Amino acid sequence: MTYSQAVLNGDRLALSRLLTQVENDAPEGRAALIELFPHTGKAHLIGVTGAPGTGKSSLVNQLALYYRKTENKRVAIVAVDPSSPFTGGAVLGDRVRMRDLAGDTGVFIRSMATRGSLGGLAKSTANMVQVFDAAGFDVIIIETVGAGQSEVDVARLAHTTLVVEAPGLGDDIQAIKAGILEIADILVINKADRPGVEMTEKALKSMLELAHPTERIFQHHGSTMRIAGPKQEASSTPMWIPLIQRTVSTEGKGIVELAQAIARHVAHLTHSGGWTIRERARLEVELDALIYEELVSRFRQDIPQKQYDDVLEKIIQRNLSPGEAVKILMNGRLK
Amino acid sequence: MTYSQAVLNGDRLALSRLLTQVENDAPEGRAALIELFPHTGKAHLIGVTGAPGTGKSSLVNQLALYYRKTENKRVAIVAVDPSSPFTGGAVLGDRVRMRDLAGDTGVFIRSMATRGSLGGLAKSTANMVQVFDAAGFDVIIIETVGAGQSEVDVARLAHTTLVVEAPGLGDDIQAIKAGILEIADILVINKADRPGVEMTEKALKSMLELAHPTERIFQHHGSTMRIAGPKQEASSTPMWIPLIQRTVSTEGKGIVELAQAIARHVAHLTHSGGWTIRERARLEVELDALIYEELVSRFRQDIPQKQYDDVLEKIIQRNLSPGEAVKILMNGRLK
Repeated sequence: MTYSQAVLNGDRLALSRLLTQVENDAPEGRAALIELFPHTGKAHLIGVTGAPGTGKSSLVNQLALYYRKTENKRVAIVAVDPSSPFTGGAVLGDRVRMRDLAGDTGVFIRSMATRGSLGGLAKSTANMVQVFDAAGFDVIIIETVGAGQSEVDVARLAHTTLVVEAPGLGDDIQAIKAGILEIADILVINKADRPGVEMTEKALKSMLELAHPTERIFQHHGSTMRIAGPKQEASSTPMWIPLIQRTVSTEGKGIVELAQAIARHVAHLTHSGGWTIRERARLEVELDALIYEELVSRFRQDIPQKQYDDVLEKIIQRNLSPGEAVKILMNGRLK
Repeated sequence: MTYSQAVLNGDRLALSRLLTQVENDAPEGRAALIELFPHTGKAHLIGVTGAPGTGKSSLVNQLALYYRKTENKRVAIVAVDPSSPFTGGAVLGDRVRMRDLAGDTGVFIRSMATRGSLGGLAKSTANMVQVFDAAGFDVIIIETVGAGQSEVDVARLAHTTLVVEAPGLGDDIQAIKAGILEIADILVINKADRPGVEMTEKALKSMLELAHPTERIFQHHGSTMRIAGPKQEASSTPMWIPLIQRTVSTEGKGIVELAQAIARHVAHLTHSGGWTIRERARLEVELDALIYEELVSRFRQDIPQKQYDDVLEKIIQRNLSPGEAVKILMNGRLK
């Protein structure tokens, strides 16, 4: 029996091993992804992002517990946040709380090694999500630290994106949030028992108002270039104004309401056609990443390493500009 | 006279216009980059990164003033931080302080529009740096907000990377710093008159110790894949243990010492051969980005949009996996 068949049959050990092969981009992993793909497209992908210190791992934990106990859903967590307790950056409190999930076969937590795989993070995450989706997990939570392009890339994977804030992380941080806000479907103010929660909520509300109630545009200008031409313009989901929800995840407060907000977003996506638009955008990103990889691989086959090195040396000597070098290399291709 | 000739002659208006063309990736910009390239390779590139709230823009300001007034160097600043006063996210105080630089023709400040160009940020920055380098600026300071892959990509451009910290930004933030520390040649504790400065310095020191005094490896695993094969392994500069320097940029304190630390790093790079290694790595990144772009452009010419759309539709219907789709598209290429 292949790994993918075992995974479809619910074999946790096979799942765990396959995830490793997929993360390592091993041939078995690639083959399995092809076999599993027809079984994907059923899970609800929830992206959770936010700065370190917002308590988002604990929030993810509580959300997973909620889906298990109240809705009896199977939940997978993909943690790509280096400060997450799931990836080993835990404070003790979080580790203890994780026991709530331990031993539950309806939950599968997988952390990603971000070191050295920064560039391929979005791809690895996408592939892991496909495996979990095929394996029948109903909800897949993708946790990332909220800063920079990689988070935007990862958030692009999700149907619903939660951006987690917390009071008292400093007003200076506001500036960076503008970019992150754009990807939020739901803004969570965690640690809402802390002083300053009113100010944080007020600040978020005014930022939402400033941002106009425009549609969230699901654009495709990530770290990989869009392969399809510029004709197909960015599709947009119909109007969704991000919800704001307060939580105190350490005490489980606000989790039910958060799950309700998420359910409202899913209903919105379903009725508006937004679900399909996000699915399409996500799969297009995945296709383009694979095309890119294949193009590079073929280029490597066509251009001997020595020729590449010679050209690079000429660039370093300033005898050739990078722009000219590309032309020379392309003309030197075998076909 | 072409733009590039005017730029080489020191024409500021031409410089400003060319930077816009380069940022927009206009044909004139591309042509100028080829003409200007032989004149590059002389500037010292300093990357300055750090979280919002660390006062790094004010620090960049002071550093630029120092290089102007004390060393009579021509200084360019490329601000790619959305929270930077140079890019319009200023608090009033910073704007006022910028007047110190206004009107000085030996200084040129250029902000980057990060919106919508996130993917191409590293490329645009690299190109702008080339223009400034050719235009004879001795020091080029690249300011980025310190979080995520794009910063690492941008830092990779620099000969010397400063990571700016500040006391009291919260212990929770420490977790994220591990990654950023790896790119630091000099750790600046700005706002060093604030309470908690001892703790911040202690924390940074222990992190440095934890990290071993290993060499900073100049690796090439950014958001673009490495085009050259895996044979050429990551070169590394000989041992450099990151320096820690306290500053109070609003009062100009510690700036001279910081400039001395930077000079020590330059001397180290020069004597150790690290300068050449970083130049090579930087130019390789730039070459690979251009190769990638060309490959995608040729793919687009070979594959009709309709064929791409049809394949994507089959993926969405789960009739075809992305992996199989790539094979089909590649076999359908005209050549």
